[in-house]
Amino acid sequence: MSKQRIAVGLCGLGTVGSGVVTLFERHGAALATRCGCPVELTHIGARRDRPDCDTSGYNVSRDIFAVVADPEIDIIVELIGGTTTAYDLVAQALEAGKHVVTANKALMASRGNELAALAEQKGVALRFEAAVAGGIPVIKTLRESLAANAIDSIAGIINGTGNFILTEMAKAGRAFEDVLSEAQALGYAEADPTFDIDGTDAAHKLVILATLAFGIPLDIDGPFTEGINSVAPEDLHFAEELGYVIKHLGIAQRVGGQVDLRVHPTLIPRDKQIATVDGVLNTVMVRSDAVGELVLVGPGAGALPTASAVCGDVTDIAQHVARGTTDARPVLGLPTQALQSLPRVSRDDVQSEWYLRMVVSDQPGAMADITRLLGNEGISIESLIQRPPKSGAKEVSVVIITDRASGSGIQRAVDAIEQLEALAGSITMLRVEAFEGS
Amino acid sequence: MSKQRIAVGLCGLGTVGSGVVTLFERHGAALATRCGCPVELTHIGARRDRPDCDTSGYNVSRDIFAVVADPEIDIIVELIGGTTTAYDLVAQALEAGKHVVTANKALMASRGNELAALAEQKGVALRFEAAVAGGIPVIKTLRESLAANAIDSIAGIINGTGNFILTEMAKAGRAFEDVLSEAQALGYAEADPTFDIDGTDAAHKLVILATLAFGIPLDIDGPFTEGINSVAPEDLHFAEELGYVIKHLGIAQRVGGQVDLRVHPTLIPRDKQIATVDGVLNTVMVRSDAVGELVLVGPGAGALPTASAVCGDVTDIAQHVARGTTDARPVLGLPTQALQSLPRVSRDDVQSEWYLRMVVSDQPGAMADITRLLGNEGISIESLIQRPPKSGAKEVSVVIITDRASGSGIQRAVDAIEQLEALAGSITMLRVEAFEGS
Repeated sequence: MSKQRIAVGLCGLGTVGSGVVTLFERHGAALATRCGCPVELTHIGARRDRPDCDTSGYNVSRDIFAVVADPEIDIIVELIGGTTTAYDLVAQALEAGKHVVTANKALMASRGNELAALAEQKGVALRFEAAVAGGIPVIKTLRESLAANAIDSIAGIINGTGNFILTEMAKAGRAFEDVLSEAQALGYAEADPTFDIDGTDAAHKLVILATLAFGIPLDIDGPFTEGINSVAPEDLHFAEELGYVIKHLGIAQRVGGQVDLRVHPTLIPRDKQIATVDGVLNTVMVRSDAVGELVLVGPGAGALPTASAVCGDVTDIAQHVARGTTDARPVLGLPTQALQSLPRVSRDDVQSEWYLRMVVSDQPGAMADITRLLGNEGISIESLIQRPPKSGAKEVSVVIITDRASGSGIQRAVDAIEQLEALAGSITMLRVEAFEGS
Repeated sequence: MSKQRIAVGLCGLGTVGSGVVTLFERHGAALATRCGCPVELTHIGARRDRPDCDTSGYNVSRDIFAVVADPEIDIIVELIGGTTTAYDLVAQALEAGKHVVTANKALMASRGNELAALAEQKGVALRFEAAVAGGIPVIKTLRESLAANAIDSIAGIINGTGNFILTEMAKAGRAFEDVLSEAQALGYAEADPTFDIDGTDAAHKLVILATLAFGIPLDIDGPFTEGINSVAPEDLHFAEELGYVIKHLGIAQRVGGQVDLRVHPTLIPRDKQIATVDGVLNTVMVRSDAVGELVLVGPGAGALPTASAVCGDVTDIAQHVARGTTDARPVLGLPTQALQSLPRVSRDDVQSEWYLRMVVSDQPGAMADITRLLGNEGISIESLIQRPPKSGAKEVSVVIITDRASGSGIQRAVDAIEQLEALAGSITMLRVEAFEGS
């Protein structure tokens, strides 16, 4: 049965929610043309008003569950964030036979398996393009365009706030706290930026990408995660001097029959495409058997780019609802029952080159000891910077790029080096990814 | 009515066709899982066998129309190329209520309006992701992901052969004919590479992108088109010296209520992302109101990348057919009757910076005359290279980058300069695009 009108309910009126209101106002007529009938935002659920968002033309409820209970609504847009109320909201909407569009990566990463199964059972759509990489259509690309590919790896800059902070620290020499405040003022970072800084947000997104890429269930505990707070300003400077940039990467790759999932600051040769993606931009690089390498670059945060992804999903769903059918393609690419867990590679086993930064007393023999302890683990040095001590200082910074070594091998060498009398403090360790071939 | 099995018929067994056979063999089981029932390539129509493609497991017809007539077939994949037989084949398939996937840009650009209208009338899908930029999901991105955006402009490297040739000429200093032969041997270029060289192939793709971006009917005569054969090896060298690379770009942009469509070799500052896309890679940069700038980079030609796009479309369609529904989203983004023509910007009016290369007798006053004639049109010089004459030679090469000028303004200045006695031969003119902001 085709519809005369499709009604959309919006739950949550934060940065992205107000962007959705803007896009419906701007492009509502075009959406109606695409869908063959009006697609209207009719009901907004928000605990409070936003001074910058005029909702006078809409039915506004303070209780977001009133939007889900509204029998007129065909599609629920969930933008309240969090994983408890948001879960209840989405589950109730799906139970009621409504289609759902969400930008909530934490919800999808933590409870997406249940929600996808529920959507399948109810024969409705659950879409989440906006949950990863803002305005970049990476979900659609993995879920649909690359359907006939075996994905080998994904590497991405998938937290705009983190990339903005690292870029400004590296290029403008600004302090972490200063850049973070600006990111919050610009609406990139959440009021509580903990998840941006400690890598949790990127890990949630990586979990989603890994499921679409490898056909594994969503597993929020899957990735090894390290935040940008482990990067000191001097690391950015030394990296530059050595021909690298430091990016906060999410990496998902197949290694034999296992999956390697990790989020951490990473040195990348500065001539690689991914190294040139600065500021609030995100990028996702996908390597697969048929296409080879595909790189997508675009804004990973902000009201309108993220709202664009939400509205793209709404349009996909609405084009089907308008014709009386359902876009019942599997939520996670495969039917949930076909998702199969794969063992995780231990991070002890993952090989890479390594960046080591240490402070060493300027005493004879120290460098020989360090070289010998690396050599004991079969690790050679590719590049080394040793600064002469500042006048009067007894200590110097030593920075080393090693050749490839496993996580456990480098850790044994680092533990041994830290025992040297010449060492002051602990050693900073960062992985280096060469991305050969790109 | 849901299906027990979906049967796919393949017409045409060239480079891409054999890639489709490979991907069905490799990923057929995964496609079945995605779709909920087997999706099988059952019938191949090809005038002759390919030694590198084993078709012994398939029903093979020498008459491709036998595939369309096969009542078992749900989805026809058209890879025969050309616009006459291919049109008849696709039209017959649509008339018979079959879904069609094609990689044929010439067909879509020249007769896609009729075919899209026919598909709409018959309630079947017509998909063509593989027609533009090989393995890059640019059609899906424009048609679906950016549905809630007003597109301002598209700029792309959308002919892999042309980019491969320009890259090899610039980086390895190789001769045009030599690189072209290699491109043909590698399967990038067609046996008859005319359309790759003269810009026709890129123009076909640009026509398709412009329709999806601006909601205008497909108009094969829309773009102004210039091929890579207007680029001499010395232009590549001078461009490099001035901090640019030369890329063969397709550009589609809104200018007021008009549309500017053009394909030509273009100087781009070498630090722009699009300038770093080399070899057989393609890229498409889309600027729109909500997302801002989105850049997609990937392989634009080759058997498997293009076959990946074909199989992505097949999967989209099959996921619906398997459930007894149809993916009846509008073929061209909007219903064909909603497409509206926009006037074209005259290329005389399009402003850009310009690269001019000329051969000048080394006589006093020549440079003053050239500068004066540019100045008469209000055009100033941004950069200039003048080489001292080789010993014994009386003529020197002069290369100029101007500031912004319209096509008609620069043409008047060039016509006047060519009248100077000091000028030997005609002036090479290339546009410079700064892509500010990216």
